[in-house]
Amino acid sequence: MNLSAPPPHLDRLLQPATAHPRAWDLLRSLCDDVGARFPCTEGDVAAVAWAQEALGLAGLERVHAEPAEATLWHRGAESCSLLLPRQQSVALTALGGSVGTPEGGIEAEVIEFASLEALDAARPEEVAGKVVYLHHVMPRMRDGTGYNAASAVRMRGPSHAARKGALACLVRSVGTDSWRAAHTGALWYHAGAPQIPAAALAIPDAELLHRALAEGKRVRTVLALGCSPMPVGMSANVLGDIPGTDLGGEIVLLGAHLDSWDLGTGALDDGAGCAIAIEAARRIASLPARPRRTVRVVLFANEELGSGGGRAYASAHAAEAGRHVAALEADQGDGKPWALRVPAAMRESALARALHASLAPLGIELDPGVSRGGVDLAPLGHLGVPFVDLRQDVTRYFDFHHTANDVLDNVSRVEIEEATMAFSVAVWLLANAEESFSGVNQGEGTATRADIAAR
Amino acid sequence: MNLSAPPPHLDRLLQPATAHPRAWDLLRSLCDDVGARFPCTEGDVAAVAWAQEALGLAGLERVHAEPAEATLWHRGAESCSLLLPRQQSVALTALGGSVGTPEGGIEAEVIEFASLEALDAARPEEVAGKVVYLHHVMPRMRDGTGYNAASAVRMRGPSHAARKGALACLVRSVGTDSWRAAHTGALWYHAGAPQIPAAALAIPDAELLHRALAEGKRVRTVLALGCSPMPVGMSANVLGDIPGTDLGGEIVLLGAHLDSWDLGTGALDDGAGCAIAIEAARRIASLPARPRRTVRVVLFANEELGSGGGRAYASAHAAEAGRHVAALEADQGDGKPWALRVPAAMRESALARALHASLAPLGIELDPGVSRGGVDLAPLGHLGVPFVDLRQDVTRYFDFHHTANDVLDNVSRVEIEEATMAFSVAVWLLANAEESFSGVNQGEGTATRADIAAR
Repeated sequence: MNLSAPPPHLDRLLQPATAHPRAWDLLRSLCDDVGARFPCTEGDVAAVAWAQEALGLAGLERVHAEPAEATLWHRGAESCSLLLPRQQSVALTALGGSVGTPEGGIEAEVIEFASLEALDAARPEEVAGKVVYLHHVMPRMRDGTGYNAASAVRMRGPSHAARKGALACLVRSVGTDSWRAAHTGALWYHAGAPQIPAAALAIPDAELLHRALAEGKRVRTVLALGCSPMPVGMSANVLGDIPGTDLGGEIVLLGAHLDSWDLGTGALDDGAGCAIAIEAARRIASLPARPRRTVRVVLFANEELGSGGGRAYASAHAAEAGRHVAALEADQGDGKPWALRVPAAMRESALARALHASLAPLGIELDPGVSRGGVDLAPLGHLGVPFVDLRQDVTRYFDFHHTANDVLDNVSRVEIEEATMAFSVAVWLLANAEESFSGVNQGEGTATRADIAAR
Repeated sequence: MNLSAPPPHLDRLLQPATAHPRAWDLLRSLCDDVGARFPCTEGDVAAVAWAQEALGLAGLERVHAEPAEATLWHRGAESCSLLLPRQQSVALTALGGSVGTPEGGIEAEVIEFASLEALDAARPEEVAGKVVYLHHVMPRMRDGTGYNAASAVRMRGPSHAARKGALACLVRSVGTDSWRAAHTGALWYHAGAPQIPAAALAIPDAELLHRALAEGKRVRTVLALGCSPMPVGMSANVLGDIPGTDLGGEIVLLGAHLDSWDLGTGALDDGAGCAIAIEAARRIASLPARPRRTVRVVLFANEELGSGGGRAYASAHAAEAGRHVAALEADQGDGKPWALRVPAAMRESALARALHASLAPLGIELDPGVSRGGVDLAPLGHLGVPFVDLRQDVTRYFDFHHTANDVLDNVSRVEIEEATMAFSVAVWLLANAEESFSGVNQGEGTATRADIAAR
């Protein structure tokens, strides 16, 4: 790649579409016409049809859906009061995958722990027969640092509590807001631990409980969760290609996930990523030249509760994994990208310098860390596919993430457009690079579910 | 008043209580220990006891409760879906005082109007049998401009819709946020119009409906409101005095309202005002000198739905109305005060200059407009009591106002302390002024319910 002249057509990719903010328009259609896209619901089915139409309209070819395992789970009615002793109805929502409470709900005393370690250190007789409340506070950070630790408490807390004999487990919502909207998210029941009901309290309600317990009050809770168990169903990944020219057998993959939680309309998580990916591809497909390598958009199924889409893609495409020269995922909302992260082996390459040089005018720095990919890409990472990360600003993302407030109104038209430009530039450069770097990620860590926000 | 030397003890009133942010501590106790204070509920009864204890602890004398009429109304269960045609469950809440829907709810087509005027101009056959949706957008302004116009649509809309034969009336929430929390608030049924159910949609849900209708879609709604009618009950105003010295027969009244809506814990509306009033009075009561005039704190009952507290106070104290030389109300949340407003006849007085000179270091300007008081003070205004307004910054207030998000977590410890200082300074100066200005407000406008935010 010639660094003395700007790569061809970048100026067009960097042109803001002020008259028609297309990424936002796509997102509006997804949120308004389809709505929430929880696996195996009507919304999920509608989304798979919507995505195929959108990729076709964007000029992609070979658009199709591929089956992916998905998790069936139904939230049902949910309610909770704290007896402080005055009765305060609180906002909470079940964690994804939770079992429900017994008929008639649970009434029990609440015991608080500041960490899984503190819970693990408790005597079982302190915990047995009570509802465990885990008070872990997530900080507000541009790079999402703190989400890993907080989501580990959410995911693992219920089984840790169950091992001590707790009847149910409540967690402080994993989020950074101060609104009465609880943040859902997956839990992981450990094999061998009893499965107990688990839910997240909205942050103000969690803080109210925390203050009461800190004052030494005995607090009881009345909890009813109507959620029901998890057989496995089917959903679909949606794929589309911009076929490459002389290196058309090689693939640059741009992913996002099409599924969403049920509470909002999945505008930021991950409707924004879908809109970014589709519109970035449309911008590339409408350039006067084809990319040398094939650009593939994959909108994954079922990221939120089981990662069935990522596993299905890696399994179906294992034979061509070596031809995936780079994979990127847009799953950090609408935030403006602020850093580029590449595989360690690529950091000193001319390609990395070219990527950075082209992205720097958008305010994007070169991150010294190693690229991690996204949850959906993790199974590809295990097959040696190298990741390129555009780290987006998530300062506000965790105010809305996994809540009823994850709706179109909280998406920035300006920021989503900037993110679209950055992804289109990165994908275009990767698809046209002189060098190839397939396999450079071999042996490096790939993202786990808990890593997603810390990329 | 000698303007060349600072008035006595002002330095102490302006000392921030950093070690113990007492206004916030009071508010925490009110929100946590009492919670919501909707008239004629357990919370209301607890609040009346709490307020008497708090005024006593603050050093006020003659602390007692006086009966006030209050409105009984019960929200009940509420639910609403839009059929876009895809079904979207939306966040809404009944307007205070609304009748419920018939057993089984209402299902009907939605018709939108941008204003009461547009609704009034519609042909009845366009509206009859439908649910009217009123789309009025409130702007975000430091001084709350726009709340009057928006709340007029909320209050009057249901009867305007009923006169055209509508089955129910929905309004866009009167607020400035983008969260899935609907803003309740009182409605006024007009005599002679049928009483139809009325509710506010959360702003993102209102915008979703608006977009669908703007695209020409036919949208139906399924609406169930379990609210029940309004007999009249009893609550109480809570009063306490700091008796004055040589002019002790004259009264400077500092008011706030003790009741709140049921959805949050009334932290900003008007727990903050109660905390400001009590703590401002405590600061004055703990000075080494008594005020010349009596300082009276009144925590009014039932501001939100009927204004029974304000009417009861004016009625019980009509004989001493002429001895009320000034009345102030704190009912604008925790916001930092930015302007002082006095009666027109007082604007050129030495007292107004002294007030302004003492408040200017807090960043408070002299507003050229005429003081309006608050909703609770309006009946006193009709008796000629002059108002002094401290206009607080309400830029963020209407994000939370009348919603489930009106909780302690959304109150600023810094701002509520600044507001407390400003009110204590204004009250202290008024209570010690050389001049008196009783009656200067005669014939000037007093606040109506709809004026509250525009003071």
